[in-house]
Amino acid sequence: MAERLSAEARRQALGGLPGWTDVPGRDAIGKTFVFKDFNEAFGFMSRAALVAEKMDHHPEWRNVYKTVEVVLSTHDAGGVTARDIALAKAMDAIAG
Amino acid sequence: MAERLSAEARRQALGGLPGWTDVPGRDAIGKTFVFKDFNEAFGFMSRAALVAEKMDHHPEWRNVYKTVEVVLSTHDAGGVTARDIALAKAMDAIAG
Repeated sequence: MAERLSAEARRQALGGLPGWTDVPGRDAIGKTFVFKDFNEAFGFMSRAALVAEKMDHHPEWRNVYKTVEVVLSTHDAGGVTARDIALAKAMDAIAG
Repeated sequence: MAERLSAEARRQALGGLPGWTDVPGRDAIGKTFVFKDFNEAFGFMSRAALVAEKMDHHPEWRNVYKTVEVVLSTHDAGGVTARDIALAKAMDAIAG
């Protein structure tokens, strides 16, 4: 099972993930992606969904038209793990 | 442009839409769909996204694993219109 990242490991990981920040009041990281329109936003979600399903690690996310708010945390570990960092990186690569 | 439904028209429409309710504090309707797993939840979202794009009327929605929380309102009209009712019906049909 993935273990929660140390404060230092998390800080370092976030340093390499532009736009990702700690979610206030939760042991989670989050980012708001803004696209051109719904087509692009849902296209991003579709590609990210395939990656998430393959990783067996799923985001919490909210979509309003061209905006996608993502929150990542590892439920079993009660916090942020390497799996969240990996999914965050994959999402950034998809968003381009 | 679609006009906001009267209180009576909205009450009648919601009567025919099981699980859809007024969203507290907003002029909107909402429903939480619960599926078997992420595959089914995102499958629903994918089909609903195609319908929404075709209608040019998009939901606010939040997905956490097998759950999809949907909020519908017509921004231009500042409230619930026939377009929201039509999208709600389409989503129910997709969820089956």
